[in-house]
Amino acid sequence: MIYLDNAATSNQKPYSVKKAVWNALSHPVNVGRNSGRESFLYAEKILGVRESIAQLLHIEYSENIVFTSNASHGLNLAIKGFLKPNDHVILTLYEHNSVLRQLYQKEKNPICFLPCYPDHRVNFEQMEQLILPNTALLVVNAASNVTGATVDYKKIYQKANQLGLTVLFDFSQAIGNIDIDLSECKRCMAVFSGHKSLLGPQGTGVLYVSPDIALSPVLEGGTGSLSNELFQPDFLPDQLEIGTLNVPGILGLGKGVEFVKANKPEALLHHKLELIQYTYDALQNMKHIKVYHNGDFQNSVGILSFNVSNAHSELIARILSEKYHISTRGGYHCAPFAHRELGTENQGAVRVSPGYKTTKKEMTKLLDAIYKIQKNSEY
Amino acid sequence: MIYLDNAATSNQKPYSVKKAVWNALSHPVNVGRNSGRESFLYAEKILGVRESIAQLLHIEYSENIVFTSNASHGLNLAIKGFLKPNDHVILTLYEHNSVLRQLYQKEKNPICFLPCYPDHRVNFEQMEQLILPNTALLVVNAASNVTGATVDYKKIYQKANQLGLTVLFDFSQAIGNIDIDLSECKRCMAVFSGHKSLLGPQGTGVLYVSPDIALSPVLEGGTGSLSNELFQPDFLPDQLEIGTLNVPGILGLGKGVEFVKANKPEALLHHKLELIQYTYDALQNMKHIKVYHNGDFQNSVGILSFNVSNAHSELIARILSEKYHISTRGGYHCAPFAHRELGTENQGAVRVSPGYKTTKKEMTKLLDAIYKIQKNSEY
Repeated sequence: MIYLDNAATSNQKPYSVKKAVWNALSHPVNVGRNSGRESFLYAEKILGVRESIAQLLHIEYSENIVFTSNASHGLNLAIKGFLKPNDHVILTLYEHNSVLRQLYQKEKNPICFLPCYPDHRVNFEQMEQLILPNTALLVVNAASNVTGATVDYKKIYQKANQLGLTVLFDFSQAIGNIDIDLSECKRCMAVFSGHKSLLGPQGTGVLYVSPDIALSPVLEGGTGSLSNELFQPDFLPDQLEIGTLNVPGILGLGKGVEFVKANKPEALLHHKLELIQYTYDALQNMKHIKVYHNGDFQNSVGILSFNVSNAHSELIARILSEKYHISTRGGYHCAPFAHRELGTENQGAVRVSPGYKTTKKEMTKLLDAIYKIQKNSEY
Repeated sequence: MIYLDNAATSNQKPYSVKKAVWNALSHPVNVGRNSGRESFLYAEKILGVRESIAQLLHIEYSENIVFTSNASHGLNLAIKGFLKPNDHVILTLYEHNSVLRQLYQKEKNPICFLPCYPDHRVNFEQMEQLILPNTALLVVNAASNVTGATVDYKKIYQKANQLGLTVLFDFSQAIGNIDIDLSECKRCMAVFSGHKSLLGPQGTGVLYVSPDIALSPVLEGGTGSLSNELFQPDFLPDQLEIGTLNVPGILGLGKGVEFVKANKPEALLHHKLELIQYTYDALQNMKHIKVYHNGDFQNSVGILSFNVSNAHSELIARILSEKYHISTRGGYHCAPFAHRELGTENQGAVRVSPGYKTTKKEMTKLLDAIYKIQKNSEY
């Protein structure tokens, strides 16, 4: 199989990630629920991962790093924990359903979307015009899981801070690909998954809450701290981390983060972007292919989406899998408004996302397959 | 280290559990977020675990098995998803903080506790007298994580069903130790963790919702289904499982469940109870020891809690760890009312919970250590 769906989950975890998980399964002890020395050693290891992620984000306090089971979980803790009834939310059309479904379900909160430029980039210039007296939160996907396009998150948080808005970044596709520096960011929350470009195991995610924000806990439960008390602790990370932690997953994620740091996000991304540029160039010469990108990969995380004529993307993705053993993702990528913006609301798109180990040869095989599919009208 | 804290997390996972996790990390593909054949194979494996757990509970529909990241997560989905404002809840004093903290935080819901008999067993005879016109839910911990005492869950759900109550069982300590048969249980929810006596990895848990109950989703997000829709799917398990699943964890849990089934919960428990009975008998002869059990281990999951004179349990647990390399859990076990019922609200208790591989020799070493501690007043 040629695996080109790293935007869904990275397929090639470093050996150190697998080894850390294996070790944690070999002599597991609960953290915060055991009085022995080994439990403290595990707690120290978990703290080490927290500190490593804090460093990755260039933030000072590791207790503001909250472990979650995935990005959706983190986005729920952030949005539901932050918003009060009638708080108005500004967001982009590129938000994931893990943001959208919350806000569409929670009818109490009015929302509005930032418009896009004709080339489908989000027009953040319009932010100020959209602010209402009750606007409390700006939600921004820092890198689209459909187009791979990134936004200038630093400029955005500076502007949001000036305007008095709290900002929530979805860094799920950005983390591990671009350097994320939140050291200057105030009134800021950041969410990402651990199993994409951070190369950790599925079942891991992170929520960062800047120290000037107090969230209400969305879930309550045992925290291993203040065990004799009936009230949820009001300090981080305990306030937002309920129940037994996914220790093997977190320690695996720690090794993924170390791998990414050692290899530098920019270098890992550079490799993927070279493959994407190569693919993009070749697709330009195929008659029946429509690519959803303007060709400027300076601001991209190495994702490319396309369609073959009017064929449904799911069909093409299945042919790629069944006939050519190439793994991609068709459909809507849990981003319904992104597809409406791109005009693909009835077709979805075939998404290609190489990993740090993907080779040019593999991309050539993809291109051969796409060429045949579109030429022979195999769909 | 002699590990006697299996009630917090089981320390000796079967090799098959570790191998399943390792394999899932070796070629990970996302489930429901990928159009390739391998994703369907993973989806089938996940379905297999769902079916295996449905069998374990003797229930018909595997889609009513919802994977959670731990028991606390499941208890939040159950309680918050079920209760409406002003619904009255009856519960036992043995509930975990993952139940209590929710209900104490959520001031909208009035609660009351079932009283206990003088020997500290819950008096379920009083259930009917506690029912108010707005009573909607009965929450029962089927096996105490402090005393190990089990309740007759079948009798309880029959009575609750007759009285028109919905019942939520916390089977975290019971599952894998006693046969849980929910085939006849109506209006029933069941929650348990995957990493205790089911021998799965930390980061796993299960919520079962009987088909006659419709929960409101507490969290919303991408489900991999209806990816182009803005509304949370209203069918199980998707409605309650948001974001990328912990695939390695769930596949590991599946192997743990298979191991437990193959070895029979009753047989696994029998071994632990023999060790507990042996320990209990020996502790009776030690002058400064108070054991929180009546000695009838017919209805127990193999947990024993004790104190040494008036010494704080955390101190004794630390001496056991540091001087004797024996791992237990002192403190309050996230069960504040259980300790008030036992009269240990200022002392907590040292909890001992052997595993399926614990030996009599290890328990003898524990007894030697306790003997020395209490005799020499080492605390």
